Amino acid sequence: VIKNLAVVGVGLIGGSFAMALRAAKGIAVQHITGIGRSEANLLAAKRLGIIDEYARDLAAVEDADLIMVAVPMGAYGQLFSALELHARADAIITDAGSTKQYAIQMAEQFLTAPGRFVPAHPIAGAEHSGAQAARENLFEDRLVLMTPTAYTESDLVLQVSNLWQLVGARVVTMDAAQHDRFLANVSHLPHLAAFALVNAVAKESEENPFDFSAGGFRDFTRIASSSPVMWRDIALTNREALLMSIDGMQGELTNLRRAVAQGDSEKLLHHFTQAKLARDGWLARREREVTGG
Amino acid sequence: VIKNLAVVGVGLIGGSFAMALRAAKGIAVQHITGIGRSEANLLAAKRLGIIDEYARDLAAVEDADLIMVAVPMGAYGQLFSALELHARADAIITDAGSTKQYAIQMAEQFLTAPGRFVPAHPIAGAEHSGAQAARENLFEDRLVLMTPTAYTESDLVLQVSNLWQLVGARVVTMDAAQHDRFLANVSHLPHLAAFALVNAVAKESEENPFDFSAGGFRDFTRIASSSPVMWRDIALTNREALLMSIDGMQGELTNLRRAVAQGDSEKLLHHFTQAKLARDGWLARREREVTGG
Repeated sequence: VIKNLAVVGVGLIGGSFAMALRAAKGIAVQHITGIGRSEANLLAAKRLGIIDEYARDLAAVEDADLIMVAVPMGAYGQLFSALELHARADAIITDAGSTKQYAIQMAEQFLTAPGRFVPAHPIAGAEHSGAQAARENLFEDRLVLMTPTAYTESDLVLQVSNLWQLVGARVVTMDAAQHDRFLANVSHLPHLAAFALVNAVAKESEENPFDFSAGGFRDFTRIASSSPVMWRDIALTNREALLMSIDGMQGELTNLRRAVAQGDSEKLLHHFTQAKLARDGWLARREREVTGG
Repeated sequence: VIKNLAVVGVGLIGGSFAMALRAAKGIAVQHITGIGRSEANLLAAKRLGIIDEYARDLAAVEDADLIMVAVPMGAYGQLFSALELHARADAIITDAGSTKQYAIQMAEQFLTAPGRFVPAHPIAGAEHSGAQAARENLFEDRLVLMTPTAYTESDLVLQVSNLWQLVGARVVTMDAAQHDRFLANVSHLPHLAAFALVNAVAKESEENPFDFSAGGFRDFTRIASSSPVMWRDIALTNREALLMSIDGMQGELTNLRRAVAQGDSEKLLHHFTQAKLARDGWLARREREVTGG
C-alpha cells in the first residue's frame, strides 16, 4: 500500500508512472498528488484522472510516502533543496532522470539522508511530452536501470525495484558511472548528432529535405524533435561522458572522411561492413533474448 | 507499348520497376528480361513472376526497347561499356542510381550517343535488397528526381517521365549537381553518420546497445544496416558533395562539443531549439503538401 504518492513533474514519464501504479495489481495507491510548474498541464492530468489533486508548490509533498521526481535534470538542485525542507523523514525519494551521477550528486548535496534517494532511469523516452502523452502501459517490457550507491538503503532499493516490476518493467542494477557512459553512447550522442545534422542541413538549403529523402532522414532525425530543455540539461549533467562520446564519433567521421577523400574503396567497405555486422548482430541478439529463443 | 524491357540488376528497385510497369494501366510490357550477377536472385525473380527470362550476360539487352539500370554505382563503368556494345541504337537507357553526376559521366565516357541515357533517381530506398524485397507499389506517391543534361533527348525524358508517373510516382526535374548536393545532405551524410555512430559504440562496449536505449538508437542507426557495397559506391561517386556535407556536420558537432565543454547552457538550448524548429517545420510543411492542405 502506498497511502500518498507525490509525482513531481507530471509529464510523459511521471504521468505514466502514476497511471501504471494505479492500474497495477498487487498494490494499492490511495492518493496521488501531482506537482509541477504548468497549471494547464496539471489541470489536464487531473481531468485525465492521472492525479487526484495538484499543487505548484513543493510543500505539497509533505504527506507523501513515495516521491517520484520526473523533471528535467536542470531542476534537480532546487528540487532536492525543497525536498529536504518539505519531505517526510521516512519518505522514499526516487527519480526517473537520464543522468545518474548528477542526480546522486544533487541528493548528496541537498539531502540530510541521501541514502533515502533511490536513483533510477526507465528507458522509455519519446518525442512527445506532457501529461496528455502519458499512458498506463508505457513501462511494460521496458528496461529500468537502477543505480544505487554504496549508502543507498537497500530495503528502499528493493521496494522501488518491486514497484517497477509490478508495472511490467525489467529492472537492471548498475553503477551510475557505467550508466552514464552507456547512455552517452546510445542515447545522448545520437540526439546531439541528430540536432547537429538538422542544423547543418538547415543552414544550407531553403528546400524541404523531407521532399528529397526516403524514410532514412525522417528516422535519423526523429529524435531532433525532442525537448530542447530536456536535452540541454542532459548534455550539461553528463558532460564528461558525452564529450568522450562526441570525440569517438568525430574520430570515426574523420576516418570516413579521409577514406572518401582518398577514394579508399577497401577502407570504406570495411567500415560499412563492420557497422552493419555490429548492428545486425545486436538486433538479432536482442530479438533472441526478447523471444527467449 | 514496351515490347522488350531489360532490367539490369533485379533488386528492390529494378524488380519493383518491372512489377510496377507490368501492373500499370495504360501501358503494355510484352517481355521482361532480367540481367544480373547472382543466379539465385535471378531465379527467385523469375519464380516470383517479376521477369520472363534471365541472363547473366549483358548481351541479353540486345532486343530491348528500354533498358533500366538498377545496379550499385560502382558497376556503371563496365556496364555502360557493355551497353555500348550490345544495346540497340534506338534503345532508351535509363537508371535509378543515387549519384547523378557520376552516372552522366559514365554515359558520356562509354556511350556513342549519351543523349539516349535518361538519368533518374527514384527516392524509395530501404535496407532490404534483392528481388524478394520488390513490390509493385514501391513507387506510389514517391518522388523520382530526373536530371537530364542539355543534350539528353527531350522526347526520351518525356517517355521515361511518363513511365514513372504511370507507376504512381511524382517526377521532379533538377540539375544533376544540385541533386547530388541535396542527396549528400539528406541521405548520404545520414548514412555515413549512422555507420560512424555504430562503429564508435561497437568499439567501446561488449554490451548490446539495444538493451540500453529506447527507440532512438534503433531508428537512428536503422540505415547502418544498409548494403555496404551500395554505400561504398555512393560515397566514392559523390565525393565532393559528401565531403562538404561531412564538414558541415563536423562543424556543428564541434560547436556543440565546445558548448558542452564550456557548460554553455544558452548556446546548447539555442542549437537544440533551432534544430527542433527546423525539423518540425519541414515536417508540417511536408504534411500540408501531401494532404494538399
